[in-house]
Amino acid sequence: MTKILILGGGGMIGQKLAQRILGQDIFANAEVTLFDRTFSSNDLAVKTKTGDICDPNTAKELASARPDVIFHLAAIVSGQAEAEFDLGWDVNMMAMWHLLGALRTEHDKSGGTYRPRMVFTSSIAVFGGPFPDKISDVFLSAPQTSYGAQKAACELLVTDFSRKGFIDGISLRLPTICVRPGKANAAASSFFSGIIREPLNGKDAILPVADTVRHWHASPRAAAKFLTHAAKLDTEQLEGRRALNLPGLSCTVAEQIEALRTVAGQDAVNRIKHVPDETIIRIVDGWPRNFAPERAIELGFKAEQTFDEIIKVYIEDDLHP
Amino acid sequence: MTKILILGGGGMIGQKLAQRILGQDIFANAEVTLFDRTFSSNDLAVKTKTGDICDPNTAKELASARPDVIFHLAAIVSGQAEAEFDLGWDVNMMAMWHLLGALRTEHDKSGGTYRPRMVFTSSIAVFGGPFPDKISDVFLSAPQTSYGAQKAACELLVTDFSRKGFIDGISLRLPTICVRPGKANAAASSFFSGIIREPLNGKDAILPVADTVRHWHASPRAAAKFLTHAAKLDTEQLEGRRALNLPGLSCTVAEQIEALRTVAGQDAVNRIKHVPDETIIRIVDGWPRNFAPERAIELGFKAEQTFDEIIKVYIEDDLHP
Repeated sequence: MTKILILGGGGMIGQKLAQRILGQDIFANAEVTLFDRTFSSNDLAVKTKTGDICDPNTAKELASARPDVIFHLAAIVSGQAEAEFDLGWDVNMMAMWHLLGALRTEHDKSGGTYRPRMVFTSSIAVFGGPFPDKISDVFLSAPQTSYGAQKAACELLVTDFSRKGFIDGISLRLPTICVRPGKANAAASSFFSGIIREPLNGKDAILPVADTVRHWHASPRAAAKFLTHAAKLDTEQLEGRRALNLPGLSCTVAEQIEALRTVAGQDAVNRIKHVPDETIIRIVDGWPRNFAPERAIELGFKAEQTFDEIIKVYIEDDLHP
Repeated sequence: MTKILILGGGGMIGQKLAQRILGQDIFANAEVTLFDRTFSSNDLAVKTKTGDICDPNTAKELASARPDVIFHLAAIVSGQAEAEFDLGWDVNMMAMWHLLGALRTEHDKSGGTYRPRMVFTSSIAVFGGPFPDKISDVFLSAPQTSYGAQKAACELLVTDFSRKGFIDGISLRLPTICVRPGKANAAASSFFSGIIREPLNGKDAILPVADTVRHWHASPRAAAKFLTHAAKLDTEQLEGRRALNLPGLSCTVAEQIEALRTVAGQDAVNRIKHVPDETIIRIVDGWPRNFAPERAIELGFKAEQTFDEIIKVYIEDDLHP
């Protein structure tokens, strides 16, 4: 049996990941537990647990079950972490600190045999401009948001606890996930999904930035695959550098729109209304646009090659599943 | 009056820094307080305080005095942080967390007017190999020791608390400080100073590595100047990247020995005994050797240009002061 714990299991990626684990033969006799603050919906045949991940006792309880694989996706999103400074640091960094401490206690109790794989979802928000045209695998992490700083701090913790042998962790710097199913949210990046999702659902969408804006994308399906691939990876190959820039697709908004035209026609494209928003323009201007993620590609991580593919994944997995 | 607090004020650099502040007209009416666990000696005419920097109440008390400038030099050294994992994270990271929280409370209480300058001594230990020939200002921080991870995590905290306006901080990645006065210590880097200091004091010295080993040095005098320069810097110039690689001198052990010969003659060089130590060889092999610290040089930070100069600084400041 492989005991799998997904922290943030109620979120979109957590649910996609659990589906993938249940539907494929990736882990021997997977027993999946989802943990989250609340579950708005969960139709999956798995255990769920709710609680406050910032509470050290929660960390102890989760660790005491000795999961073999822990996917740590729980986070306060970027915008909220910026608005609520304490909450961001508590959830996005201190919760990791407590969890790692609790896992180390289990490691010690087991006489050193318990050493769980942890797959942590970091983010390209660990990078801050000015950027080169393509961000290489050795470019500095100089975040310009609290969210990015919290993710970068967790990467350091995951790496050091792994180097000491208490856990066997890996941090994945996910591209922006697109097309997100469901409703638009308050994230500044929401429109990257919205301009595709809304027209495909017969609704109007707002484009708040120029169509020359370039960004770095991967689908929710690719994200779930990144996570399971990381869970099975021989981490010796990482040679101590346990935070990875993942592959993605770099494209402009104009290229996104062109792909929408190809897949769904001009009527869909006509649903997109350009309404400039100076706040979003300024935020997006500080984001990475392109990467050369050579290490992750060598390690077998794969993302979509065209935005047409990303749209087709949305249609297959979420619009007409 | 400028209220100056030096955390780790009992250490070698803390004492050099306090001397420099007292001896020069750098800060208007400087009122210096040194804080440390203990003071083995302190002949300076300044206030001293002792306490446990890991205690959140200590952080609150130190912050409540509202120092204008805080030099944060307090740390568990590299070797001890590796051997005592909890102690290292507590002193080198969690103490910073408590201190920043306490300073932010004072910032809030003051209605946002209190915003102290913090100069934090980070380290080139934030870097881990493989390295390029020269480490640039945009090379990734991938530490391979707990000490390096703790310093890198503090850099993220200092930057984010500064970005939010709670403090006005800067992190200085110091080169290895050479020639350290006093006795040899247990640090793996101790010999870089020992092979110069001991012969100049008429004693034998052990060289545990090959003389082809290259490393990155600056004198204690240069370190004290880095710190006061950082305290006076217009931090707007940092453009949000508040961790700096400092200038130093890259030279081989053979070049160090050649400088010793020039300054003190062949008799001094004859005091150096080559006794290979596999443990030290392996540790030192993982250390950075050379940098291209362009930003710091542009910002006016200066180090020695030759190892002869570094030896002369030791003779002037410590051997025959």
